[in-house]
Amino acid sequence: MSTTTIILWIGTAIMTLGLLAFLGLTLKAPTENRSFFTITSLIALIAATAYFAMVTGYGSIVVGGRTFYFARYIDWVFTTPLLLLDLSLLALPTLSGNWNRIGTMIAADVYMIITGLVAGLINSNFKYVWFIASAIAFIVVLYNLLGYLFPLAAARGGEVKQLFNTLSILTAVLWICYPIVWLLGTEGIRLFSLPLEVGLFAILDILAKVGFGFVLLTSGVVLGR
Amino acid sequence: MSTTTIILWIGTAIMTLGLLAFLGLTLKAPTENRSFFTITSLIALIAATAYFAMVTGYGSIVVGGRTFYFARYIDWVFTTPLLLLDLSLLALPTLSGNWNRIGTMIAADVYMIITGLVAGLINSNFKYVWFIASAIAFIVVLYNLLGYLFPLAAARGGEVKQLFNTLSILTAVLWICYPIVWLLGTEGIRLFSLPLEVGLFAILDILAKVGFGFVLLTSGVVLGR
Amino acid sequence: MSTTTIILWIGTAIMTLGLLAFLGLTLKAPTENRSFFTITSLIALIAATAYFAMVTGYGSIVVGGRTFYFARYIDWVFTTPLLLLDLSLLALPTLSGNWNRIGTMIAADVYMIITGLVAGLINSNFKYVWFIASAIAFIVVLYNLLGYLFPLAAARGGEVKQLFNTLSILTAVLWICYPIVWLLGTEGIRLFSLPLEVGLFAILDILAKVGFGFVLLTSGVVLGR
Ligand SMILES: CC1=C(/C=C/C(C)=C/C=C/C(C)=C/C=O)C(C)(C)CCC1
Ligand SMILES: CC1=C(/C=C/C(C)=C/C=C/C(C)=C/C=O)C(C)(C)CCC1
Ligand SMILES: CC1=C(/C=C/C(C)=C/C=C/C(C)=C/C=O)C(C)(C)CCC1
Repeated sequence: MSTTTIILWIGTAIMTLGLLAFLGLTLKAPTENRSFFTITSLIALIAATAYFAMVTGYGSIVVGGRTFYFARYIDWVFTTPLLLLDLSLLALPTLSGNWNRIGTMIAADVYMIITGLVAGLINSNFKYVWFIASAIAFIVVLYNLLGYLFPLAAARGGEVKQLFNTLSILTAVLWICYPIVWLLGTEGIRLFSLPLEVGLFAILDILAKVGFGFVLLTSGVVLGR
Repeated sequence: MSTTTIILWIGTAIMTLGLLAFLGLTLKAPTENRSFFTITSLIALIAATAYFAMVTGYGSIVVGGRTFYFARYIDWVFTTPLLLLDLSLLALPTLSGNWNRIGTMIAADVYMIITGLVAGLINSNFKYVWFIASAIAFIVVLYNLLGYLFPLAAARGGEVKQLFNTLSILTAVLWICYPIVWLLGTEGIRLFSLPLEVGLFAILDILAKVGFGFVLLTSGVVLGR
Repeated sequence: MSTTTIILWIGTAIMTLGLLAFLGLTLKAPTENRSFFTITSLIALIAATAYFAMVTGYGSIVVGGRTFYFARYIDWVFTTPLLLLDLSLLALPTLSGNWNRIGTMIAADVYMIITGLVAGLINSNFKYVWFIASAIAFIVVLYNLLGYLFPLAAARGGEVKQLFNTLSILTAVLWICYPIVWLLGTEGIRLFSLPLEVGLFAILDILAKVGFGFVLLTSGVVLGR
């Protein structure tokens, strides 16, 4: 087995274990907070499926001589909005009056992933224009997360404030690494080899999904203690 | 014309007639129940379109020597959530407080269709892993339908209870036949020939959409009598 | 540079300028009307991205010897529902009780674009069946816009009535030109050359998105004056 294959199997395994753990935690979830558990389980399920597709060869194509894992983008286009939904529900238990901001944040996020996918498919330097469009959308996401949801969560005070603090900083730091890995990896300037890139993305994916999920679902806030 | 072509034309015709009948019934629909009529008409419209695409050759591709009708999955990814929406609206006239359960059911359903599509595209035995993932999601759908919506509908009593009884059992029985036909047909172990598989799917599709629609839209419950 | 390329660059530029202008207008938007500004900016952003994709060669494929711009349909499948959402929010500040009609209108619109895409991909005369399906869905959209939303907006009276009048007639007139250009252009009977078709679609897109957006976002109604 190649290094890449081993990494992808480890990714599949950890996402699956994360999924099982989240499903286990769901059993003791208080009814009014079940959304966090179902959303986070869905995130792990989608990631486990995408990793399995990538390791068995159905999640990549060859573009201009390099292996391009398109399955990541299918994963991300669903899981990043779900992660933002988790954070939004934490800051704002009733989303109804706030669809404008949350809608903007999720639309920017989806735009970021789709333009990132186009960038990844292109071999000429035009890819950097798409990269920049994606990065601008990413800034809009971060701005809404840290500039809008953050103060709202802080205003709720106590444990919610603390938890949102941890999760939003974790999210901001991890998410910023994605475009960096992309840029240095095989989609960008090719400083990193494919196995290195796949390994770094796997670490990020595990922390941003399974790590994030554990912090959220074992917190006193959502367990209602 | 080949047998397959004849069957697909019959499917197109019946879905179209079902659509016209549902549109006709919409004219006497009470305003507060119009959603059932528009959702059910949309289901028939999508199916008629998919059958027409399949019969004219734009709904299939050849994968490893066999004809694979991908248009079914485009049909199903829209129509199965709409069927579940019909059932959810019947059990719970106000969905607002119940998005968590209904969201879970619909997410599991979409996951079932997408993993089923991947399974259908694969020629090696890895397809059975995808089949199993799809089947587990299907169990989640059935569990939410029969274990969660069913008692809620029963609690509403009278005609609603009776109608939901009929429709949910009809749905459970028919939907269970889909993975069986798939498994015995050309996507699975190839016991059935393509025309037989196409014929069985056509019967199931007609019963699960047009049959379901007639029972729902001619019932006293939605006609407000 | 070919004529087509020049036109597409102009389209990209105007959509981008429209986007910047709308973002600028958003700064003075009253909080309760911000949805109009974010939705309309999103429309311009998607169009600018689609034009950029088309002009750099990543938005078209060759089908049976002709250049087919599939990126238009990706643009339209997102932007036409967003335009209808703008109009719906104008006629009905609270959408909640009206999801049935608005859902029908948007479902018909998405069906119109998807069947239009299939029509555009086909080279045989079967394309006209898909064109007719798309056109019927278009009539459903127009019927809901003019027969349902129009009287509701009129009932709100005053400036809203006036603004909805202007915007819905602008929309109806411009949108009707799309199937005509399509039919006379390279997807249809090929009376128009590709550059002429691209130019006409560009004019329509600019008026239906940037023109529409300016009328809406500089109106007293949404600026709250
Ligand atoms: C800005 C940018 C990117 C950002 C990606 C991000 C932020 C991904 C986050 C993924 C997560 C969090 C996944 C699962 O948990 C790309 C598409 C790499 C490349 C183009 C520029
Ligand atoms: C579990 C499973 C499947 C289930 C499909 C179902 C349940 C389809 C229902 C379709 C309906 C009801 C259509 C229209 O009315 C597949 C994808 C065949 C194959 C993989 C395993
Ligand atoms: C009826 C019909 C069509 C209608 C297209 C329309 C109405 C497009 C509107 C686009 C707008 C308004 C874009 C951006 O502002 C097609 C697909 C051309 C061809 C098939 C028949």
